[in-house]
Amino acid sequence: MLRQDTRATDIRHGATTATVGTLATPALLLDKDRLHRNLARLSSRMAARGVLLRPHMKTAKSIDVARRVHRSRPGPITVSTLAEAEYFAHHGFKDMTYAVGLAPHTAVRAMRLREAGIDLKVLLDSPEQATMLGAAGRAAGVTPSAFIEIDCDGHRGGLTANDPRLITVAAAMAEAGVKLAGILTHAGESYGLCTPEALAAAAENERAVAVAAAKALRSAGHECLVVSVGSTPTAHFAENLTGVTEVRAGVYMFFDLVMHGVGVCATDDIAISVLATVIGTKREKGWILVDAGWMALSRDRGTAAQRVDQGYGLVCDLSGKIYPDLIVAQASQEHGILAIRPGSAQVLPDLAVGAKVRILPNHACATAAQHELYNVVSAGSDAIHARWHRMRGW
Amino acid sequence: MLRQDTRATDIRHGATTATVGTLATPALLLDKDRLHRNLARLSSRMAARGVLLRPHMKTAKSIDVARRVHRSRPGPITVSTLAEAEYFAHHGFKDMTYAVGLAPHTAVRAMRLREAGIDLKVLLDSPEQATMLGAAGRAAGVTPSAFIEIDCDGHRGGLTANDPRLITVAAAMAEAGVKLAGILTHAGESYGLCTPEALAAAAENERAVAVAAAKALRSAGHECLVVSVGSTPTAHFAENLTGVTEVRAGVYMFFDLVMHGVGVCATDDIAISVLATVIGTKREKGWILVDAGWMALSRDRGTAAQRVDQGYGLVCDLSGKIYPDLIVAQASQEHGILAIRPGSAQVLPDLAVGAKVRILPNHACATAAQHELYNVVSAGSDAIHARWHRMRGW
Repeated sequence: MLRQDTRATDIRHGATTATVGTLATPALLLDKDRLHRNLARLSSRMAARGVLLRPHMKTAKSIDVARRVHRSRPGPITVSTLAEAEYFAHHGFKDMTYAVGLAPHTAVRAMRLREAGIDLKVLLDSPEQATMLGAAGRAAGVTPSAFIEIDCDGHRGGLTANDPRLITVAAAMAEAGVKLAGILTHAGESYGLCTPEALAAAAENERAVAVAAAKALRSAGHECLVVSVGSTPTAHFAENLTGVTEVRAGVYMFFDLVMHGVGVCATDDIAISVLATVIGTKREKGWILVDAGWMALSRDRGTAAQRVDQGYGLVCDLSGKIYPDLIVAQASQEHGILAIRPGSAQVLPDLAVGAKVRILPNHACATAAQHELYNVVSAGSDAIHARWHRMRGW
Repeated sequence: MLRQDTRATDIRHGATTATVGTLATPALLLDKDRLHRNLARLSSRMAARGVLLRPHMKTAKSIDVARRVHRSRPGPITVSTLAEAEYFAHHGFKDMTYAVGLAPHTAVRAMRLREAGIDLKVLLDSPEQATMLGAAGRAAGVTPSAFIEIDCDGHRGGLTANDPRLITVAAAMAEAGVKLAGILTHAGESYGLCTPEALAAAAENERAVAVAAAKALRSAGHECLVVSVGSTPTAHFAENLTGVTEVRAGVYMFFDLVMHGVGVCATDDIAISVLATVIGTKREKGWILVDAGWMALSRDRGTAAQRVDQGYGLVCDLSGKIYPDLIVAQASQEHGILAIRPGSAQVLPDLAVGAKVRILPNHACATAAQHELYNVVSAGSDAIHARWHRMRGW
């Protein structure tokens, strides 16, 4: 039995007469023109290289966004939680990869989705997980399918391509009756880079390690059909994808200030922003107080480690035009303090109580997660075109 | 018309046969014994000083917690959003202060609650807000009641006690037909302290500034009945509260690692934790990977600026016993990397895939906000006694 998310259908077709100017704040805005442009950019990049794009839905967590990613039908996706897998399964998606290492309870729950006819692939990197997954599959009467996680840059989990345990894990999978879907890696270290050369090198490293791991498995007699790589920076900077069969990426749909700092997008590509209202001013301190604190923006300070620290976000006017060097310098739960970036010669704009601003986020995944829905807008219009529900939880 | 949160009633009475050992992870646990002890501690402290405690519900955001704060009946509370005010009004609470500076749309919405018979006080610090609030009150046919926000430590909004604008604002309120409820201040800077002496001094400063502001208003002929101060650190370190009529605090209900670092609580007082499962190990790097990343823990790194940096949280076994110096060293969306604190001689515990841990959070307000409900537990038992819903949004 799949859990059904009925709230999604309740909200997403709701017509609205609200406008950006009249919306209660704080609120999350999604610019659909920018979304479509970002989707088309990576989609055509992958099509040109003949590689399947398996978008990661962990950023958007929305069926309405997923439908725009795959225009004609429910296509292949990546998910970060089993609640996401169940949500998208409920909405007709069948081809999914759950890209987080397996635990006993997730193995059992994942097999329930396979029982329901969903081709959900899971991720592991140890013989223990293979055995556990095999048992869960047998209990459910299905054949599990799993990727072996490969570590391409020391970032997180997985085995290196030349680790002899790679073959041990594949053997344990065969022994346990688990189908080897292929190998999967994620160039997480690319988030810390900021030059085209370094990003291209990270992409090539990700490709080379993935291909080497697949080769090692094949040499040991294991079929390794899928070679899956991905991260938004490497997906946009990879030139050669020889040997790779699919690419995963998630934050590219919305982009954010961290991705701007990495050099993957312009600020004009950032599709989500938080609408906020001025609730006070402290001219003597150079502060404007708004009603978006970390509850609306998230505590993510990802740009703190980059060349340009954007505080808790970069401030724009209602039309989306950036106020030069005006950032959210501090945040408490429901208060944001806007101030001019230290060292800048810009002056504080004249914003009175009640004025509204839009704040570009450091990290789209974290900021969007603080909200229940997207207020969908487009350039040059004050209208809220739709409200798209987000799912949450695990 | 009040919005009704029907989900709260759906979940909160739900019986459960789950145990901590069988709960799907990540999940938020709330230790009710610790909760009750924390509530009793501040409650008796304030009772001994004859000062009203107006708990801030921004941390818990739960009717079930609120009912335990005020044992017999819906008592006075503080809220951080109007959605909270509406939620608690729906559950019978009538005496509330919305402690975030007013904007035009919140003025209108707050007056709807007054129209519905809720004594909701709001917060302002400018003549413009007073005029705006007066207009919203007249439109709704109610008399608004507002606090003037006082700045006691340069932390955020408000006027200093000797700012002549204090009298201007009070006059504008009288002119606009807005009742002056009193003055309200928040010693937010106390979060950055860590010695009993400094905390006691911050508490005395908060009191002295609040009393001075009230005196200035009274001298100018304005009634100032309520003198409201509050922050969890100062509430616990204030010795003399002469002239103060009420104290607000929120995070004291749960406490967290930041409050531990400030010196307000022991780690054994921290009532919430995130249950997580091991999903991989990298012994060669000294890592254990768990399924609680920043989505479950929040991005809050509040202890980074303290003497002991707890990473994204301090790790305990299933019974709540701390693994010495084992912290969540890194976090991505759904992955946490456990490692021994740099410089420590402790060794990594032997935790295999499937093992469960509990993670004490840096910041209870931020971590709890990542979850839909509290799994209520008590010491010495594996049972989940109840599931308490949390409200969210604005």
